[in-house]
Amino acid sequence: MPVRLLTELSAPAIDAALGPDSVLVLPTGAIEQHGPHLPVATDLLIAQAMAERAVERFGDELDLWLLPPLAYTKSNEHAWSSGTFWLSAATLTAVLADLGRSVARTPARRLAFLNGHGGNSALLQVAARDIRLETGLRTFTLHPRLPADQGGTSPADELGMGVHGGFEETALMLHLRPDLVDMTRADRWVPEHLAAYRHVRFGGSVSFGWSSDDFGPAGVIGDARAATAEAGARRAEEAVTYLGEALAEVARFDPTPPSAA
Amino acid sequence: MPVRLLTELSAPAIDAALGPDSVLVLPTGAIEQHGPHLPVATDLLIAQAMAERAVERFGDELDLWLLPPLAYTKSNEHAWSSGTFWLSAATLTAVLADLGRSVARTPARRLAFLNGHGGNSALLQVAARDIRLETGLRTFTLHPRLPADQGGTSPADELGMGVHGGFEETALMLHLRPDLVDMTRADRWVPEHLAAYRHVRFGGSVSFGWSSDDFGPAGVIGDARAATAEAGARRAEEAVTYLGEALAEVARFDPTPPSAA
Amino acid sequence: MPVRLLTELSAPAIDAALGPDSVLVLPTGAIEQHGPHLPVATDLLIAQAMAERAVERFGDELDLWLLPPLAYTKSNEHAWSSGTFWLSAATLTAVLADLGRSVARTPARRLAFLNGHGGNSALLQVAARDIRLETGLRTFTLHPRLPADQGGTSPADELGMGVHGGFEETALMLHLRPDLVDMTRADRWVPEHLAAYRHVRFGGSVSFGWSSDDFGPAGVIGDARAATAEAGARRAEEAVTYLGEALAEVARFDPTPPSAA
Amino acid sequence: MPVRLLTELSAPAIDAALGPDSVLVLPTGAIEQHGPHLPVATDLLIAQAMAERAVERFGDELDLWLLPPLAYTKSNEHAWSSGTFWLSAATLTAVLADLGRSVARTPARRLAFLNGHGGNSALLQVAARDIRLETGLRTFTLHPRLPADQGGTSPADELGMGVHGGFEETALMLHLRPDLVDMTRADRWVPEHLAAYRHVRFGGSVSFGWSSDDFGPAGVIGDARAATAEAGARRAEEAVTYLGEALAEVARFDPTPPSAA
Amino acid sequence: MPVRLLTELSAPAIDAALGPDSVLVLPTGAIEQHGPHLPVATDLLIAQAMAERAVERFGDELDLWLLPPLAYTKSNEHAWSSGTFWLSAATLTAVLADLGRSVARTPARRLAFLNGHGGNSALLQVAARDIRLETGLRTFTLHPRLPADQGGTSPADELGMGVHGGFEETALMLHLRPDLVDMTRADRWVPEHLAAYRHVRFGGSVSFGWSSDDFGPAGVIGDARAATAEAGARRAEEAVTYLGEALAEVARFDPTPPSAA
Amino acid sequence: MPVRLLTELSAPAIDAALGPDSVLVLPTGAIEQHGPHLPVATDLLIAQAMAERAVERFGDELDLWLLPPLAYTKSNEHAWSSGTFWLSAATLTAVLADLGRSVARTPARRLAFLNGHGGNSALLQVAARDIRLETGLRTFTLHPRLPADQGGTSPADELGMGVHGGFEETALMLHLRPDLVDMTRADRWVPEHLAAYRHVRFGGSVSFGWSSDDFGPAGVIGDARAATAEAGARRAEEAVTYLGEALAEVARFDPTPPSAA
Repeated sequence: MPVRLLTELSAPAIDAALGPDSVLVLPTGAIEQHGPHLPVATDLLIAQAMAERAVERFGDELDLWLLPPLAYTKSNEHAWSSGTFWLSAATLTAVLADLGRSVARTPARRLAFLNGHGGNSALLQVAARDIRLETGLRTFTLHPRLPADQGGTSPADELGMGVHGGFEETALMLHLRPDLVDMTRADRWVPEHLAAYRHVRFGGSVSFGWSSDDFGPAGVIGDARAATAEAGARRAEEAVTYLGEALAEVARFDPTPPSAA
Repeated sequence: MPVRLLTELSAPAIDAALGPDSVLVLPTGAIEQHGPHLPVATDLLIAQAMAERAVERFGDELDLWLLPPLAYTKSNEHAWSSGTFWLSAATLTAVLADLGRSVARTPARRLAFLNGHGGNSALLQVAARDIRLETGLRTFTLHPRLPADQGGTSPADELGMGVHGGFEETALMLHLRPDLVDMTRADRWVPEHLAAYRHVRFGGSVSFGWSSDDFGPAGVIGDARAATAEAGARRAEEAVTYLGEALAEVARFDPTPPSAA
Repeated sequence: MPVRLLTELSAPAIDAALGPDSVLVLPTGAIEQHGPHLPVATDLLIAQAMAERAVERFGDELDLWLLPPLAYTKSNEHAWSSGTFWLSAATLTAVLADLGRSVARTPARRLAFLNGHGGNSALLQVAARDIRLETGLRTFTLHPRLPADQGGTSPADELGMGVHGGFEETALMLHLRPDLVDMTRADRWVPEHLAAYRHVRFGGSVSFGWSSDDFGPAGVIGDARAATAEAGARRAEEAVTYLGEALAEVARFDPTPPSAA
Repeated sequence: MPVRLLTELSAPAIDAALGPDSVLVLPTGAIEQHGPHLPVATDLLIAQAMAERAVERFGDELDLWLLPPLAYTKSNEHAWSSGTFWLSAATLTAVLADLGRSVARTPARRLAFLNGHGGNSALLQVAARDIRLETGLRTFTLHPRLPADQGGTSPADELGMGVHGGFEETALMLHLRPDLVDMTRADRWVPEHLAAYRHVRFGGSVSFGWSSDDFGPAGVIGDARAATAEAGARRAEEAVTYLGEALAEVARFDPTPPSAA
Repeated sequence: MPVRLLTELSAPAIDAALGPDSVLVLPTGAIEQHGPHLPVATDLLIAQAMAERAVERFGDELDLWLLPPLAYTKSNEHAWSSGTFWLSAATLTAVLADLGRSVARTPARRLAFLNGHGGNSALLQVAARDIRLETGLRTFTLHPRLPADQGGTSPADELGMGVHGGFEETALMLHLRPDLVDMTRADRWVPEHLAAYRHVRFGGSVSFGWSSDDFGPAGVIGDARAATAEAGARRAEEAVTYLGEALAEVARFDPTPPSAA
Repeated sequence: MPVRLLTELSAPAIDAALGPDSVLVLPTGAIEQHGPHLPVATDLLIAQAMAERAVERFGDELDLWLLPPLAYTKSNEHAWSSGTFWLSAATLTAVLADLGRSVARTPARRLAFLNGHGGNSALLQVAARDIRLETGLRTFTLHPRLPADQGGTSPADELGMGVHGGFEETALMLHLRPDLVDMTRADRWVPEHLAAYRHVRFGGSVSFGWSSDDFGPAGVIGDARAATAEAGARRAEEAVTYLGEALAEVARFDPTPPSAA
């Protein structure tokens, strides 16, 4: 059971527990096809597990509080597949705006989206600004590990294209929920011909609108075959360590110049 | 860990597992103030627990599949209180419409909202019709136990007004999560003067728009003092039994007259 | 000509006539197919007639004021048929919200929807709450007679399914506008096979999304054959008597506990 | 009782009665302050009366069918006053679009807005185009008499500014509903200083955004003092004659060049 | 390069330059098919050129400031043709409302739409009112020359139907950008059969919803054959003279009666 | 005058000129405060100039076509300042979606946003995906030079924080429009205390919602003092060279694996 789950408190207890530097952490997952070897909840499970571990380890020190995750988010790049449950950009934006207003009603003044799905990253940035401007909250968008299509890295073997259902996610799932992974179905689906592009690529200087079936019928972009629970455990530990550092900055971040304060 | 949680399957496995008479069960909770003795997640925890038990007991027989719950729903009648996290009617309607479209992309043709929060009931009815008309899905709205403000009953002692944080919810929470209940803060907040109204009352023939602070500053409407874990266990068992019956009808419901079929 | 029709007053006269306990009564009808024997305006005509009679009889005593009705409302369960003129849920919600704001600009503080169409009931409940929260108005939803699919009753002969174009509505129309009823086209369209369901039924504990052509091509659910003008007159009189009682409560309803006032 | 009121027919009768050249006539009124001498329903009453008379006189010949009026429309230029009940531009646009779709479901292919409120004119033009493009209906916007702020005329004595509550509307109301007019409160409220503007004026080449309290606190723009029932009767007769001519064109209007037909 | 282009100033310079009687001039063009002889930017080029000339000639005297034009506006009557780039009514309304709010943040209190596309005229009127009511700005809608479908005139030879791509627009373009006009493709496309209608016509008392392909496949309504650069130069000069007069009124327009000021 | 400006063609010429591999280039600028030394149109002028040069140099080879720019975009991080003219996220998203549909009506199948304003970048990514999914167009988002808050670089002297009105933008403007730059007002506004953050920073792994006045009253983030026209010319040339490479990839980008083609 997660610790410091804010919603296990009563309303008066929430008022007592929170202060302006408390950080509310909202995991944003996704329910979307992840190939034949991973469950559709993969992004949700990873975001939630990383958030829970980070809050468990650093929560007391940094005054972090966990919120129930958003399971259903913006996954229309997988809408072609049964098993993808998704919200439109307008709907998810409205959900985030409503939650931002709800957070602003508490004593807390910091809200961090801890995002497990690359398809949400850009929208969360837009929402983070708009919530700040509407409510005055300080807002942040983090990833347990930056997705390869958002500027992060993936193994050389995947040519930097371990974007969806590849080594990284599969390893993490083998660590977190091996019962839900079917390695007999894991395979290599790397669109190698895209390595010829220097600018138009995942995480490149030119972003492009894509649907996951643009790259073939598998719906996976990456190579899951070498994934192991041990690699997953290492990456999970790296992610939690990183989140501790990042959330420490989130908890004290203040853009106001000292002279102007 | 819940059984038959659909999102633990891979996308191809979902296509294989579901057929037109499969019932997808979406618990709809709420995160909202529940007085000083109950956590703000009360409605979510009850909806989720009842849904999990019902699916566990009847899922194989009735081909039920659990979906991750909606934690944040329409709680604006508690918006005056910190600790309430809520979506507007327009936002929640959009969420449900998007999920309806996502369900329609699977082989399943039956979607049941299992609702733990009376403030959602009317909106879910509107959404259920609109999703049916847009997607052709058969849609249903159930409650583990009909809320007193939706035509259900509450103990005589509460004068039929055990609407929010009263005996019923407190007993269920003492059964499900006693660690989150503070019975030393439980009290009686029954707006007894309302018993004089015959038509304008919770569940009466005249419904009325209300905010939970219309009835006083406590934010509770009911009397939690007599609640016990034993009473909660009994009611949970009654609820699961009822859900089994109700979901059996959901699974086979067909409005088409036999002659027209 | 209806009495106490607010909109026959000039703006300054409205300011003089209304006080905080005045009740503005907004009839909400529908224009939708009602089978071959009834006009598409049936719900509008009934709502309007009952509202006019109630305001005529009780208006002076209870400070009731009639508003022009909403003829076009949410009838998408009959959208399959020519002759149905309907607003989407979003549109009708916007209309009601705009009117709520307009009412809030007057001295009156009570707004009652007098609804003649079951397909509006749930949406009106949502709107009534949202208008209260946005404007501070006290808001109410009444029915001349609770529809069978909203918890009301219908003759045993209809197996509780006199939902649309059945005995009740036909009798009322024979009383109100016999020139618009064609009893030679009246028939029995009761989906008798649904009597086997205990929970999933009109007004049952499990509501379901339906379109009126789910039950066969007639678009009627009920049995109009036994309807007479005499029965309609009796029911109209019962309805007006009931509305007098209900509106008396609406006019004085105050949720604030005496101790907190 | 109006004749050829479409909604008094049953759905099958509507299908039988209408053909592609039938014209559905939707009166659009307004509920808005009209000064101290006129009821807030003035625009609704005029639009409805003129529509009823035109359909009564020309309906059989031109296959015209009356629809129940829209009472509440876009009156935000009078929103500052109690007694104005208004829809936003977005709401009214949505209402019209929904009704356009409903009309398109019938056999009729012609829809005419018969508008009694100048504040609706521009919006109706936008809606008329959008409904045509979405549904293929032929759509038209008429006025019983073109308002002075929409290119029509008003008596010289009003300097062309009989825009709201002036001679014309008062005379028509003295003819139609003298019981609702209080001539002891009629007065002259003509913003005479505006006569100095040649281009920026009501119906001028430069339109301007205005609220009716821009011109002083009365909320009237015009001079009602000389209005008489006789003048109103004459104008009503002129209006009906004009509507007959205009609707005859509406009923046969076909933009397709003969060569392309 | 246009003079008095507001956006060439820095933000502090804008605050210093503008006062409450400054007029911000927003040209609204269109990108839409204009037949085979004119570029799709015709309306944009005309609106922009006329606005630039008017501001150049009268800007110092009247305190006019040019804003960058809206190129893409409401052209759905030409949506059937490739080369039309258009915004929906809802989108354009939102753009104008957002810009109105932005103008209201400056010291200026007057905003004038200088519109080159008849398809925008009605929508701009709606927006002008709504912006005034929301922000308190004085708002105006002008045309370099009133379009024939908005009450303006066109040569007798065009039977008053020089609505789109006819003599007037072609002459202006021959004057402004002869390099973009192909007179070998100019032709006569006048729907002469429409001259038989007295009320239902462009700029008539009955407006009608139309798509430009209602009148045949050419997408032009008018006769461009006689257009010359000289005629265009004359009309441009007339338009600028007119705009000077009209903007002088815009700059000093005050609806408040002197007695009430 | 820009070359290959698509909107200077007639509609039939557009159909003839474009093919599926044509790339439509839409510059997206901004009108927003840029400190006391730069005009509010800075982002618009840079985006437009770079787009024009790139299309001029590479247009024939790569079949590029310029569209009129969007001047007004999402600048709410500068909404606190007069001189900022901005669209909300919802409005700009609607504009882009409408334009996407308009592009899809042409023979072209590639649409590239050439963005000069970092505040648009995330929203453009969301729109690019949604347009692709709705219309099937291939969509791309480019920057003349990646903004420092979007993963680009800025001079060491600015500590990587040359985000708004700093060295880069000022140099480019000195090159493009020196008449609009006031170097006497250029200054250093680098929030140096932010260099202490490793993750929460412009372009860092944790993005944050900010308003430009979060960093002090200047509204500038960067150091413009060392900017020169020569540096600007160099950077402009680098940008055009880069855009040529990037657009060459845009013009041929095909995600489909060769085996699946």
